[in-house]
Amino acid sequence: MGEGAAKSIAADLALPSVEPGWVWLIGAGPGDPGLITLLGAHALKSADVVVYDALVDPRILALAQPDAERVYAGKRGGKPSPIQRDISVKLIEFAGAGRRVVRLKGGDPFVFARGGEEALTLVEAGVPFRVVPGVTSGIGGLAYAGIPLTHRDTNASVTFVTGHAAGGDVPDGLDWTALARGAPVLVLYMALRHLGEIARRLIEGGRPPSEPVALVSQATTDRQVIVETTLAEAPAAAASVDPPAIVVVGEVVRLRQALDWQGAAAGRSLVPDPLGSRSRDEAV
Amino acid sequence: MGEGAAKSIAADLALPSVEPGWVWLIGAGPGDPGLITLLGAHALKSADVVVYDALVDPRILALAQPDAERVYAGKRGGKPSPIQRDISVKLIEFAGAGRRVVRLKGGDPFVFARGGEEALTLVEAGVPFRVVPGVTSGIGGLAYAGIPLTHRDTNASVTFVTGHAAGGDVPDGLDWTALARGAPVLVLYMALRHLGEIARRLIEGGRPPSEPVALVSQATTDRQVIVETTLAEAPAAAASVDPPAIVVVGEVVRLRQALDWQGAAAGRSLVPDPLGSRSRDEAV
Repeated sequence: MGEGAAKSIAADLALPSVEPGWVWLIGAGPGDPGLITLLGAHALKSADVVVYDALVDPRILALAQPDAERVYAGKRGGKPSPIQRDISVKLIEFAGAGRRVVRLKGGDPFVFARGGEEALTLVEAGVPFRVVPGVTSGIGGLAYAGIPLTHRDTNASVTFVTGHAAGGDVPDGLDWTALARGAPVLVLYMALRHLGEIARRLIEGGRPPSEPVALVSQATTDRQVIVETTLAEAPAAAASVDPPAIVVVGEVVRLRQALDWQGAAAGRSLVPDPLGSRSRDEAV
Repeated sequence: MGEGAAKSIAADLALPSVEPGWVWLIGAGPGDPGLITLLGAHALKSADVVVYDALVDPRILALAQPDAERVYAGKRGGKPSPIQRDISVKLIEFAGAGRRVVRLKGGDPFVFARGGEEALTLVEAGVPFRVVPGVTSGIGGLAYAGIPLTHRDTNASVTFVTGHAAGGDVPDGLDWTALARGAPVLVLYMALRHLGEIARRLIEGGRPPSEPVALVSQATTDRQVIVETTLAEAPAAAASVDPPAIVVVGEVVRLRQALDWQGAAAGRSLVPDPLGSRSRDEAV
């Protein structure tokens, strides 16, 4: 997006820009650079410094000015990621120096992305901030896989769960039996490593081992891989895909037989009525 | 966004356009026109016909070409909305006539928006389609209210629930006791009318009547209204706000005291540590 484009969007929609001394927490979306918001792209254009995570596409970073400073805040190789506190200290320092700071995160800043924690440190330091939400991978990634999160015939609720607590274990504050009973569709973030434990707890809680599951690795990117499996077989399947991945458990996975629009564009034959519910639809 | 802007984005990010005979289901985001995606805005620019819902901002519709046909598919006045089947028939007819069709929905097409149903009818009719996800109001709307959906100290899961079944009642397929026990944060869509019944079931299921609740009406728009209340008092508070609204139940609502960035810009003093957890944060 060139300078003219940014100006034109700003003029038509009166989009605000980052002001000196401010930090904007911006969601970059699930991967496909087209899935960042207009406001996020416009704000990037006004940044002096961009602090970005590992999962942000280089084409999104390229939307910033050529002379904007780019600071990497993700994991590199096998090394541990910078301590959360170090990232916050940097943001506060940049803002304190009067720079226009963008903190760019994959997905949405407030969905399993520690954006709330970073924002709290800004508030503590008296740094003004703004949040620009993004398309989270648990929604946008599944849309690219042809899986709707909600569908009238299958579920009136959907539950997002992180499969990875701050300490690296399966989160222990979760009532897995209640989740198994009350969550017809589960969308698991960062769950590949602990999927065996999670599947076991869900089956113990009453979910059928044959329940459909999809693993969506590197959703919406050119490297996207999707595996359809079952709850019982999902842990073994997890070994065949690379992180980051979204795991979805529930009947909505069957709808992919009908709604895999990427597959259809590549020649897959779609099944129009995978739930066998067409007669019911037509009655309404 | 002018013609030059759209071309420039398309060139830099190689964004695809709608092709003749295709239907693209596009999420317009929660309200603020800056929250549509780059891809959604670019695709709109290429549409011959745009079939849009009530909640779509006119400034987003204005991104389409001046001579694109605009077809309203939402509620008008007190009249019932067009039957879902009528909308699908229109989409199929437009595509069959070789037009470039955009179906523009508020929020995300696959989150309580019947996008899956519309897509199934397209598949049945052999119409090629694509989905462009959007920022859903249960995430983006709450971000504008300064409420993160997840926070390390409060919740490892978040549950989205529709408060309104296809027939207009509280959805009866939900296990409210399991939801009360297993969902530390509940985000309720279209729940104003049935909030009394929902709050009663959650309290019966074990949720404290004093649990914090926020109602966010017309999220991210200039007409946004936010009410902070409790689970016991939320039904009465619901009478004071207009639909559409998002209702959020859970401890994350307390974080708004720190993270209400819109309020801060208007002079509100923020409380840096509303959960009293700063010492814990610093230990990590």
